[in-house]
Amino acid sequence: MIDLQRDGDVFVLRFDAGENRFSPDFLGAAEGALDTVAKNDGPGALVTVGTGKFYSNGLDLDWLGANQDRFEEYLGRVHGLYARLLSLPMPTVAALNGHAFAGGGMLALAHDFAVMRTDRGYFCLPEVDLGMTFTPGMSALIQARLPKRTAHEAMITGRRYTAEQAVAAGIVQRTAEEAEVLPAAVEWAASLAGKNGGTVGKIRTDLYGPALAALTGPAFG
Amino acid sequence: MIDLQRDGDVFVLRFDAGENRFSPDFLGAAEGALDTVAKNDGPGALVTVGTGKFYSNGLDLDWLGANQDRFEEYLGRVHGLYARLLSLPMPTVAALNGHAFAGGGMLALAHDFAVMRTDRGYFCLPEVDLGMTFTPGMSALIQARLPKRTAHEAMITGRRYTAEQAVAAGIVQRTAEEAEVLPAAVEWAASLAGKNGGTVGKIRTDLYGPALAALTGPAFG
Amino acid sequence: MIDLQRDGDVFVLRFDAGENRFSPDFLGAAEGALDTVAKNDGPGALVTVGTGKFYSNGLDLDWLGANQDRFEEYLGRVHGLYARLLSLPMPTVAALNGHAFAGGGMLALAHDFAVMRTDRGYFCLPEVDLGMTFTPGMSALIQARLPKRTAHEAMITGRRYTAEQAVAAGIVQRTAEEAEVLPAAVEWAASLAGKNGGTVGKIRTDLYGPALAALTGPAFG
Repeated sequence: MIDLQRDGDVFVLRFDAGENRFSPDFLGAAEGALDTVAKNDGPGALVTVGTGKFYSNGLDLDWLGANQDRFEEYLGRVHGLYARLLSLPMPTVAALNGHAFAGGGMLALAHDFAVMRTDRGYFCLPEVDLGMTFTPGMSALIQARLPKRTAHEAMITGRRYTAEQAVAAGIVQRTAEEAEVLPAAVEWAASLAGKNGGTVGKIRTDLYGPALAALTGPAFG
Repeated sequence: MIDLQRDGDVFVLRFDAGENRFSPDFLGAAEGALDTVAKNDGPGALVTVGTGKFYSNGLDLDWLGANQDRFEEYLGRVHGLYARLLSLPMPTVAALNGHAFAGGGMLALAHDFAVMRTDRGYFCLPEVDLGMTFTPGMSALIQARLPKRTAHEAMITGRRYTAEQAVAAGIVQRTAEEAEVLPAAVEWAASLAGKNGGTVGKIRTDLYGPALAALTGPAFG
Repeated sequence: MIDLQRDGDVFVLRFDAGENRFSPDFLGAAEGALDTVAKNDGPGALVTVGTGKFYSNGLDLDWLGANQDRFEEYLGRVHGLYARLLSLPMPTVAALNGHAFAGGGMLALAHDFAVMRTDRGYFCLPEVDLGMTFTPGMSALIQARLPKRTAHEAMITGRRYTAEQAVAAGIVQRTAEEAEVLPAAVEWAASLAGKNGGTVGKIRTDLYGPALAALTGPAFG
């Protein structure tokens, strides 16, 4: 479901569960992998990547439908995943091999940088078209990471951004062809792996203090 | 003074009072029209547009000069107009047929998107050259809607932006020739009219919570 | 060490102390010059500029190493310099003749606008590579002045931006060849010198209220 490998100084965390929706098992595996990564000493950086045409489609709506009484607890755990990435003591790069939708798009935003595949796949926050709104934590994350006009358009219209459009809108920083997405992300991460992890974590945690507070507070605000 | 018509799913609210300054009568008519619009059920979107060379020049300084004791009450009503647009339960597009100055520029910013006329007309916050400052509500609206560097330049220098400059600065999203401004805005609004109004309103209200709080609080902070 | 001259309506404050690090003497001279400038009546604008290949390299780490017990007091004084520029009752333009690093880069950000030399010199926040973090005041200043994605990249990676890269990233607004940096800044400042200083100061102080509060509060938060 989740595979953690090391390529030089770079941890590569591959999500390999179809649409990579956040099932409880997926979340548990991701949390465990980030526990391992966070213990790193010395140079290090993290790349996350999906498989096939999905980076991640976000919340596991099937599981949620069958477990509605656990919605708040579940959202708290998703928020926690974002918060862990935002406070991870090393640089992070998302390799967007495919769709990053809804909670999966927010997962991408929780990384320092992102490389997005050019020929296929969208970044999209489709909540408005699903009749859903954003939790205070998710809203804080999106607003902390996206230019104001982009956050507005993405949240109000549910626009699907191609890689080129996502660069223009300030959502991702780089694009690459399918085969080059992961290598480009790993190369970028490797170039940053020499940064002192503790310093990176402290600067990032300070920078996103309000978003982290929203993500670690009550899920429904 | 104000004319509300419906073009398919799109409400078109035309301001037709010369410079379209916010006289008490103008505000009353706008409030009434937005009351009608807000009651819409089913698909819907709003376009506002002015007439001739003015979208709106903002505060009615003549009326204010004769009613200085009502300044705070008056500003509260102007703030309320912005707040109603920010929380309107449907997508909104401003068709900037001409000048959008001062409070009229802020009115444009209270819409989801704006289309601006290319050959004539400026977006301008001239307060600095009038010896005026911005109320906390106005400042919050401007800062919530404009890129930081643009808010700074617009507020500190009173720069007049042409349509092309306004796109580059992130003030408006699209430009059109005079005859195409309203059709382009209506077409854009129609493309968004299928969004669930309640969801759009909730997402936008959450997104601009701090600005809405400033706009609905005491006018002088 | 610091030379204050007047060129028409424009005050030109030249830093002439090598790397222009903020020694206590440098800070005292800058504070005195800004006292003089702030007393201006009538048209006025401020340009600051360094000498040779340095605009300013920021904190005086040598002095700090010898006076570690005065770190908080010292930082408070540096914060105060930024706060004075942010609240100065006239337009301000930084002429970046050379490197603007760390606290020197933040000094540039405390101006309304900046012109940067094209062939040599970087804007850089190298704190992450020095194992340093940002004080709440510095972080608030950077976040208030830079686009979100730029603040992130600059603070997390310590990237060195050339003039062209700094324009693209929204750090500075204009570039010029070495000999033209100061004249361009003076010309720009002169074009803004007619603004009412009190109004400019009030608008800017309102606009950066939270950053000013962070800069004038306890240095370590």
